[in-house]
Amino acid sequence: MKLYDGGRAPNPRRVKVFLAEKGISVPTEQVDLGALGQKSAAFTAINPLQRVPALQLDDGTILTESIAICRYFELLHPEPPLFGRTPKEVAVIEMWQRRIELHLLMPVSHVFRNSHPAMKEMEVPQVPAWAEANKPRVLEFLHLLDQELKGRAFVAGDSYTVADITGLVSVDFMKPAKIAIPDNLANVKRWHTEISARPSAKA
Amino acid sequence: MKLYDGGRAPNPRRVKVFLAEKGISVPTEQVDLGALGQKSAAFTAINPLQRVPALQLDDGTILTESIAICRYFELLHPEPPLFGRTPKEVAVIEMWQRRIELHLLMPVSHVFRNSHPAMKEMEVPQVPAWAEANKPRVLEFLHLLDQELKGRAFVAGDSYTVADITGLVSVDFMKPAKIAIPDNLANVKRWHTEISARPSAKA
Repeated sequence: MKLYDGGRAPNPRRVKVFLAEKGISVPTEQVDLGALGQKSAAFTAINPLQRVPALQLDDGTILTESIAICRYFELLHPEPPLFGRTPKEVAVIEMWQRRIELHLLMPVSHVFRNSHPAMKEMEVPQVPAWAEANKPRVLEFLHLLDQELKGRAFVAGDSYTVADITGLVSVDFMKPAKIAIPDNLANVKRWHTEISARPSAKA
Repeated sequence: MKLYDGGRAPNPRRVKVFLAEKGISVPTEQVDLGALGQKSAAFTAINPLQRVPALQLDDGTILTESIAICRYFELLHPEPPLFGRTPKEVAVIEMWQRRIELHLLMPVSHVFRNSHPAMKEMEVPQVPAWAEANKPRVLEFLHLLDQELKGRAFVAGDSYTVADITGLVSVDFMKPAKIAIPDNLANVKRWHTEISARPSAKA
């Protein structure tokens, strides 16, 4: 088994935080995103969508999509459960994982990719008006999340789950996207501080 | 249990096609998207993100996100499996479900929402340049999908899965987005014709 990794970029980082929470170690090969290594012929043969992470299984099967890779490890190593145990837990955690992904990670990514000078070669064409349109969406979702986190420790309930991992990389991705957490969102700040203090956050 | 539905819109339709494939019937309440019923105070109390579908469980729990709702039903009614059985099957199906969602359904949705006159009140502001930027992404992914479908009947392998359901609603959503399947993509056309002929596609 081999994990094709991409450093601190949000998606490969999700898998590494997940593995750290599970205590799993996987042989890793770095793909140099700065040199557009994900667009090389060699890596395109692994993932035609030219994105990291990718996991090569021992039978040669390639898995891509960070959440699909995480779920694969969850099924092989169920403890501690990060996708839930009962049907209701599993569904609530997937709901929150997706809410965070679609309404926080994606808009932050749209802002970053369509406004940051470093993304000119990656996001063609950059559409600055789309970056602007997404900034208020990030803040609107963070306000909603702050209300939710009033009543519980983690995004999907009283336990740390894969939804918190997506939340961590989303909030950390706000920095290069130049969006700050508003000062009045005390619950989001408390939650982000707590999950950032876990050893897994160093991944 | 009650499903808040939204007619032929892609996300509520995913759940209905899934339920039809499973042979499950669920009491349903229509939310009138034409009248912006999803933004009413009553529905906002159910889903603060103001989107359908939503599933209310008998204990009052609200599940949103079509794929989380589908997985909940998969766990309650495992046959026929639409999310896979073994860890590898589950991961490959989730990979394809996400690839279709992120690289087909989303760009089609961006085109529709940012160019269709009917979406002016829903997508504020509309960014026509973002619609234009997404059209070639739709076609690029369809070409990749056509290569994949050369070697197999369905998106994620030899069986119909939830990835085909996302594929069906994505391709059907291309019509209001005014994007046609290129004539030379014979495998995509064959696949779309076949999954459209299943009784579940009427949902």
